[in-house]
Order: sequence, then structure tokens, then C-alpha cells
Amino acid sequence: MTDPDHATRLAHIALGYLVEPGNRELGLLVRRIGPVDALRRLRAGQAPPGLVDAVVPRLATVDPDRLAETALERADRLGARILTPDGAEWPHQLEDLVQISRDVPDPVDRDTFPPLCVWVRGPLPLAPSCVQAVSVVGSRASTEYGNHVAGEIAFALAQRGWTVVSGGAYGIDAAAHRGALAGDGRTVAVLACGIDRIYPLAHGALFERIAGSGLLLSEWPPGSDPHRRRFLVRNRVIAASTLGTVMVEASARSGARFTLNRARALGRAPLVVPGPVTSAMSVGCHDALREEQTILVAGVDHVIEAVGRIGTDLAPPPRAERTARDQLTPLQGQVLDGVRPRKLLSAEQIAAAAGVSARQARRVLPELERLAFVTECDGAYRLYRTSDGGRRTR
Amino acid sequence: MTDPDHATRLAHIALGYLVEPGNRELGLLVRRIGPVDALRRLRAGQAPPGLVDAVVPRLATVDPDRLAETALERADRLGARILTPDGAEWPHQLEDLVQISRDVPDPVDRDTFPPLCVWVRGPLPLAPSCVQAVSVVGSRASTEYGNHVAGEIAFALAQRGWTVVSGGAYGIDAAAHRGALAGDGRTVAVLACGIDRIYPLAHGALFERIAGSGLLLSEWPPGSDPHRRRFLVRNRVIAASTLGTVMVEASARSGARFTLNRARALGRAPLVVPGPVTSAMSVGCHDALREEQTILVAGVDHVIEAVGRIGTDLAPPPRAERTARDQLTPLQGQVLDGVRPRKLLSAEQIAAAAGVSARQARRVLPELERLAFVTECDGAYRLYRTSDGGRRTR
Repeated sequence: MTDPDHATRLAHIALGYLVEPGNRELGLLVRRIGPVDALRRLRAGQAPPGLVDAVVPRLATVDPDRLAETALERADRLGARILTPDGAEWPHQLEDLVQISRDVPDPVDRDTFPPLCVWVRGPLPLAPSCVQAVSVVGSRASTEYGNHVAGEIAFALAQRGWTVVSGGAYGIDAAAHRGALAGDGRTVAVLACGIDRIYPLAHGALFERIAGSGLLLSEWPPGSDPHRRRFLVRNRVIAASTLGTVMVEASARSGARFTLNRARALGRAPLVVPGPVTSAMSVGCHDALREEQTILVAGVDHVIEAVGRIGTDLAPPPRAERTARDQLTPLQGQVLDGVRPRKLLSAEQIAAAAGVSARQARRVLPELERLAFVTECDGAYRLYRTSDGGRRTR
Repeated sequence: MTDPDHATRLAHIALGYLVEPGNRELGLLVRRIGPVDALRRLRAGQAPPGLVDAVVPRLATVDPDRLAETALERADRLGARILTPDGAEWPHQLEDLVQISRDVPDPVDRDTFPPLCVWVRGPLPLAPSCVQAVSVVGSRASTEYGNHVAGEIAFALAQRGWTVVSGGAYGIDAAAHRGALAGDGRTVAVLACGIDRIYPLAHGALFERIAGSGLLLSEWPPGSDPHRRRFLVRNRVIAASTLGTVMVEASARSGARFTLNRARALGRAPLVVPGPVTSAMSVGCHDALREEQTILVAGVDHVIEAVGRIGTDLAPPPRAERTARDQLTPLQGQVLDGVRPRKLLSAEQIAAAAGVSARQARRVLPELERLAFVTECDGAYRLYRTSDGGRRTR
């Protein structure tokens, strides 16, 4: 305990067991006096009353020092590590949450302060992975459509060097992680329970794959249960650690809306994939798209245009097959409208049909002949049949 | 020819044969000196040179006076009538096109002046039908999804007393007309050829149904062919005669985009239905939704919110099934997170698990018991099993 770094680390861990993450009062206290003194004051009942009161029941059931020591040993066995704001791996964009924790009056949203520390398991260094990162979130009860789109976007993001962050849940989250893994890219699962807990249970193999090449991350110390409320608190980290949040499918009351709103409040890009208006799983997406500032994304190009470098990552305009007619000027097109498929017409007759002057028709018709739209015979014109036998009529 | 009204009408019709609708120069000339004198000047070559040049070939092939007389007889036989701006049926919102015809520099868009006259067939009076009117347009190569959505929206609009305007084409247009007819409502098909022409041919029965209860409408005189360019020129009337344009499906190069852009330029509501991002037929819709000002609509409520009376036609928020948990306060929810399904815990243990003060837990747990979320036994609590056997865990 004479190593100050070790003492600081143990205090961080102990605080994580005593107070729910995101607590603004504790966050401010730790910033002012450091975790070791903050822990001592909490125990002595010398912190703000609300904070002390909330800690008393936990202090009565657990010994935070022993828990912290045990957690470190457990983390060692798991190959996990604990990151704190003074370390090299800490993603400093989480600091943006301080502003939100000040602005948001809604009591549901009160736990919005940046994490005091996070537990991570996996080979990825966290901070560099968040430099180019996008979160992909959505409904747990997703459809095949949503899974497909989330997977495709995550795959393409991963292939282009973007980290895909999500919540490790059923449905869209899992599709996003799997897509990123299939794209041989980086993916981070931000959990709402200890990183030694597998929730949902069926994701054991998925979490092992993520821990094998990416990162499992949690603010809650090892052993913590996935409380319902923790999912909402956790969402702020998904939003804050990335440059934009893509919501793929969301029912009217999806928690993904919460992450999207956090992203918007943090100045991150709030991106939404639409779906069939007949699908209940897209109702939340369409509702969000009717709000201001949200951006519709139909694929990875749109995502990267929103979060990439300005001017260099513009999405290409939708590709449309260019037809031969596209090369014509408006006047050429209008004259061509006056040409008949089989009946030979003079330039004057064609001008009359098209509603242009005879001079214009006489100038344009030879151009149309050179372009193989019309064919000329004794000074009269008809449509040129294309090689596939089709005629150039509407 | 001594009846001045009759002379005016014949001049209008003759001008329709001589000059393509939307021509700004002719429109301004007619406004200044009236159709009879405008026609006389055109024939004498005393109009702007571009206009005179374009008319010469037609004057050489047709006699506009005779055509006009014949057209009137033909219209009588068809039960059609010709409407002019001085008549009671004229929809004066078409006047808004004057501004566009001045602003738009693109030569493709030059024919944007209001129609000089329109031919209509059907029992609907035009002007009153345009007071509450929405256009529903989209791809000719629509999918079942698009047809379904267009039909549903048109049906619901018609049932609520809105006129559905479209272009009579294959695909979305036809689905919109059919939906309005099925809803026993008003529908107007704005054609790009004479109202005596059936284009596409397969829509003979549909056009008869529209003419039976709604209106077929065209700026082109009877006998006119459906030139390619005329569809684009026609689109401005669809946009201008309605309070908003709903685009349901559109490929990257759909002409429906043109109508939507016209609607936006005219200050009408530019409304777009999204679809699966995997569908080529929604690419144009999503592209349009990424532009400013367009509004995503997922159903008729959204459409009516956009075009209806401000404040009274708001769409209801998406319905989400409210769960029992929704009634809880944030603190109640947090305490409930600390309660276990089977194991009885004291208020202090629950406070420790949830991260709240013991006082808060002791206050809230009896509330949760009254709400049947928890059950109490000797001062300890566990989750209350719901009647369906499910447990209130996440």
C-alpha cells in the first residue's frame, strides 16, 4: 500500500463498488481531492449527505478494500485491466459528458458524469481505438432486415479501419459486433455488468471472440449484475466514445433512442437507418428521423460522410444507370420527342411535333443522327432501331 | 365568332396546339393582350422571335382554328370541358408557378409558367377539389411494398376528405388513384397527353373509373401525344395544385424527384416515405430525405400533420405498449433493480445492491409492494411473481 499508484487504483475500484457509475457528486469530489481521499471521506461520512446515505448500506454489507483486492486478482486471472483517466489508454472524449451531467435536468438522466475508471478485457488499446469509432445500436428484437443492414454497415466500417462500438446485446448489437469481426476489424462491447459476467448468457462465444481481438469494457467492477437501469447509464459511454451513433432498428420505446439522444446532446452525429414503414421495428427510427438534426443513412458511405473528415469522405451520389438519352441537351431531347419510330418525317414536321423552330430541328437532327438516335433518308428522319431491337421511344 | 367568350376559348385552344404548355413568353404575352390578340400576333410573326420561330413549323402543318373547333366538338362528345383562368373552376394556386418560371435558370425547367388552360373530364369541380389536396407520386417500376403504402395513404386521405392527385402512370401513381377510389374519395389524374389518349394503354379501365367519379386533366389539347418531355412539364401542375407531394418510391433517377423538387420550390410540403435501404426503389427517397426541408412520412397521420391545419392536425406520437414499469419513478425503478426474484433481502441489502440510501429503500419498498412489484415477508422483500408466471427481471 506504499505504492501511491496502487493505492489510487485500489481506491478507484473500491469507489466503483460503493457508488453507481456516473454519479456527478462523487465525480466532482474525486476530481477535487483524488480517489483515495474521496474514499476516506465517504467512509467517514464527510461527503455530501445524499452520497453518504447511498453508500451506507453498501459499506454495511461489503468491505470495499477487500473487494478491490479480490477484483484485481480476478482481473489478473481474466487477463483484464483497469483504466483510469490518468492512464495512456483513457479516451479523453468521455470528458464531454461533464457538460451533459450539468445540463440535463431529467432525474432519469442524472448519472451522466464520465466514468471514474473502466475495466477492459482484450488486446485493443482503448484510446487509439476510439479515434475513428462509430457505434451501431438498435433493437434487441430486431428483424432479419435490421440484422442484415447492421452487419453490412459494421463489416464495411471495420474494413475501412473504423472501430465498431456497441452494447453486446441481442439483435442489432450482436449483428454489429459480428459484422465488425467478419470484417477483420476492431469492435468494442460496452457492457452494463461486470466484464466477468456473460449477459445475455447465449453470447458467451461472441464475447470470447470480442475479447480475443477487440475489447469488452465496463464501468462496473467484476461481479456486478446487469441491473435494468445500468443499461441506460451505460449508453452514455457508447455515445461519448464514438464520433457518431447509427441506430438501425428501434421500436417506439427502444433504449437505442436513448443512446441516439445522448450522441446528439454530445455533438456526435445522430445517424438513423430507415426501414419499411410497415415494420414496427422501424417506428422508432422514423420517429427519430422526423426530429431535427438526425441524419438518414442508407449505408456505410453515408455514415462515413457524417463522421469522417469534412470534404474528403463525401458519400458518392446514388448511382443510377445512365442511359444514352442522358447525354442529350434539353433541346436535343425535345426534338427527339418529335421523331416517329417508323414514319419518316421532314425536319419541319418534326419541329412542328416537338414544338421547336425549324432552324433548331435542322441543326439538331444531324447531331442526333451522329449519336445514332435517328436515321436519315432523303432528308427525312425516323428513329434509329438500337441493336437490341428496342426502340428509343418512351 | 361574334360571341367574345367563344372567341377567347377558341384562341386558348389554338394556342395550346401551337405552343408547348408552360412557355413563359407566351404566358406573359397572353396576360398582356389576351389570347385572341396573342394568337393574331403569333400568326403575323409579331411576337418574340424565339416564340415565332417555334410556331412556324406548326402553322405550316395545321390550321389552329379548325383544330380548335374540332377539339371542342370532340370534347363535347367525350363529356370533357376546357377551363381557363377566368372561369370559376380554375385553381388559382397554379399562379404560384409564375415565380418559379422567373427563378429557375435551368433550361430543362424553362417551361414552368402556369397553364393557359386545362382540359378536364369527370364530374369533380376542379378548384374546390384542390383546396384539400395532396399528390402521391413515385416510381413506375414500384414494388409491392410501395404499391401497398401508396394505396394505404391514398385510401386514408380519401376517407378523410382529401383529394388525391397523381399522374395516371404505372406503379405508385396507379396505386394512389386506386387507393383513393377504394376510399370512395376524390382523385385527379394529371396527364401528359390529350385527355382522349389512354397512356399507358393498360390504364383504360382505371381512367374510366377516374373520369366516372374524379377528374382526368391535361394541359395538352385532345389528340396530343405523350412526349417524354411533357411528363416533366406536367409535373409542375401536380405539385402546384396540391398542398404537399408524397413521394413513395423512387429510384435514383425517378421523375418523381422532379415533382418533389417543384413542390419544395413552390412552398408546398415535400414529403417522402422511406423504405428498406436494401431496395433500389427507395434510393431516390432516401437521397431526397438527406436533403434539407424534406419531411419523412411513415403514414397518413404524418402527411396530414404536414399539410393540415397547424395545431389541429398533429400526428399522434408512435404508440408503444406501456409496461407496468413505466409508472415507476426513477428511484422506484432503481430500488426494484436491487430486489431478487427468490431470495428475501432486507431493505438495507436491497439499498446496497441498488446503490441508494437505506432510508430511500425503506420508503420505496412498501410503495413497490402496493404496486405489486415486490412481496414482503417478515420485513424482507423479494420480487412478486406476475400472474403469467413471468418474473419482473430484465
